[in-house]
Amino acid sequence: MPKKSPNPDAPLPLAGVPRDRRILVAVSGGVDSVSLLHALVSGGFKKITVLHLNHALRGSASSGDAAFVKRLAARHGLPIIAARADVAAIARERALSIETAARQARYSFFAAAARQARCRTLVLAHHADDQAETFLFNLLRGGGSGLGGMRPRTIRRIDGVQLEILRPWLGVWRAEIEAYADREKLRHREDASNSSPLHTRNRIRSRVLPLLAKEFGRDIRQSLWRAAEILAAQQEWLAQSVQLSAAEMSVPSLRALPEALQRHAVHQWLHNHRIRQISFTLIETIRALIPPGAKPAKVNLPGGSHARRRSGKLFIQPAPSPKS
Amino acid sequence: MPKKSPNPDAPLPLAGVPRDRRILVAVSGGVDSVSLLHALVSGGFKKITVLHLNHALRGSASSGDAAFVKRLAARHGLPIIAARADVAAIARERALSIETAARQARYSFFAAAARQARCRTLVLAHHADDQAETFLFNLLRGGGSGLGGMRPRTIRRIDGVQLEILRPWLGVWRAEIEAYADREKLRHREDASNSSPLHTRNRIRSRVLPLLAKEFGRDIRQSLWRAAEILAAQQEWLAQSVQLSAAEMSVPSLRALPEALQRHAVHQWLHNHRIRQISFTLIETIRALIPPGAKPAKVNLPGGSHARRRSGKLFIQPAPSPKS
Repeated sequence: MPKKSPNPDAPLPLAGVPRDRRILVAVSGGVDSVSLLHALVSGGFKKITVLHLNHALRGSASSGDAAFVKRLAARHGLPIIAARADVAAIARERALSIETAARQARYSFFAAAARQARCRTLVLAHHADDQAETFLFNLLRGGGSGLGGMRPRTIRRIDGVQLEILRPWLGVWRAEIEAYADREKLRHREDASNSSPLHTRNRIRSRVLPLLAKEFGRDIRQSLWRAAEILAAQQEWLAQSVQLSAAEMSVPSLRALPEALQRHAVHQWLHNHRIRQISFTLIETIRALIPPGAKPAKVNLPGGSHARRRSGKLFIQPAPSPKS
Repeated sequence: MPKKSPNPDAPLPLAGVPRDRRILVAVSGGVDSVSLLHALVSGGFKKITVLHLNHALRGSASSGDAAFVKRLAARHGLPIIAARADVAAIARERALSIETAARQARYSFFAAAARQARCRTLVLAHHADDQAETFLFNLLRGGGSGLGGMRPRTIRRIDGVQLEILRPWLGVWRAEIEAYADREKLRHREDASNSSPLHTRNRIRSRVLPLLAKEFGRDIRQSLWRAAEILAAQQEWLAQSVQLSAAEMSVPSLRALPEALQRHAVHQWLHNHRIRQISFTLIETIRALIPPGAKPAKVNLPGGSHARRRSGKLFIQPAPSPKS
């Protein structure tokens, strides 16, 4: 477990990042990703392509970030793939929070860049504070999906591209990265959105964690980090234990599963059918179709489709198409 | 999922509590357990034995609680088993917090009472707020064990007695119980320790949850309750998947398990060997003995014993006895 008292001279770990294959490294221009790029270059990694998405959320500051990252890549003699996304417009169109829209835009860009670079390995600079904060955020925001944190290695399919996502610094605290950046005299950009209290994630960092630390008389980031770690491993095991591909689910097979696996199977099934906003309540409502003699046989799904039980199977009935 | 807007006239659930067998009902005198006893009696449950432990923490208020519960049992014509434990002394002797000492004393009393009454089924009044608060408490306090919440039915072995513990009100919010008590005009005692900010649990209730609700702009007890529910089911499934009884563990079998099961197996193994204070760090240190070619072969355990790897097995070497 990472300790909160960093050893200022310990090298930051790059375990698991392949030296022999090309890698994509996402660089925002902030201290975390600039330090990661620096550590990789200093560590002798050569086959690096830098990725940068301009989120266009902060006007000239955003284009300043983009220019900064381009110069940084050029200085290291590294190829760069850069793009611009109007995140605010995406958020409006899809009725998403800015944070969610930014994440969607970022991952779509990563997938497109991976295709362009003919490279499927992406390295991200997420660190231990990100892990603890994301875990608390997901926990308190609720939602039907799992509570696991990020994993050092994840395979994720985005827009038809299968990406291997590596996060070698999940066990490194922000303070250690900042100490490294100071030591190496790295120039980086300030991420203005990091200090805006409008972002829930920033409120967690700047207000919620200090409050909890005060009430509990200790820094609780360690506890959160550990919980994220334990639950991420449980979540991975759940996913391995339930492999679903069929369009229908057999009610008797579902019934035979323990509760935890039933929930995971139903979640995965809905997700595979592109149902959005899968809440815990929705999962429990569908689970109520499973017991022998269950009365309901139909559950409304977000977006107008239905889940139905018939002849011992669950299947999804698409929303009726609008009349022409 | 229980909603925060109780229907004031809905009857409180007693599902899963057996009508045909004798049950033990723990009654502190507070509104939760007094309401539970009332609901059971009104619901026609007849074979009830009331249990009350005087924690002796609040002088005459504590003996007042005991006298109140005795009168309540007598009024309903129910047998009662009552005892007194000097929790403060237990806490001092065993170097425990008052809360932990109280819990240990309570469960020892339950086991002794179960033996005396020749009854193995105990009903407790834990409710949805308890579930949410306990989950947050365990999460932020840390510790190596699982993060699951309480289950509506648990089998627990205490002092050689196998107890079936039922909690029919885990899905009922405190406000619903209080509304029920008002409606039924139930007299009950105030639990003075409920309002003391010295207890971490009370600080969670009175300060931490309101602060989090304010920062997140919503009541986050629902999210915590749901997480406790999901993780309790996962924890139960983990426990079913790893059944350990052997004194030694085979290193190759451990190696073949996914990370989540390795952690659970190591935890269970240490627990079976009566190792106390099983931290996450300890579990991870022992897991470091597992990979092929692992260098360390010995790990210090709390209390002076050691875990050792030899000939493909892990075993525990007891602490040397003090020289005579």
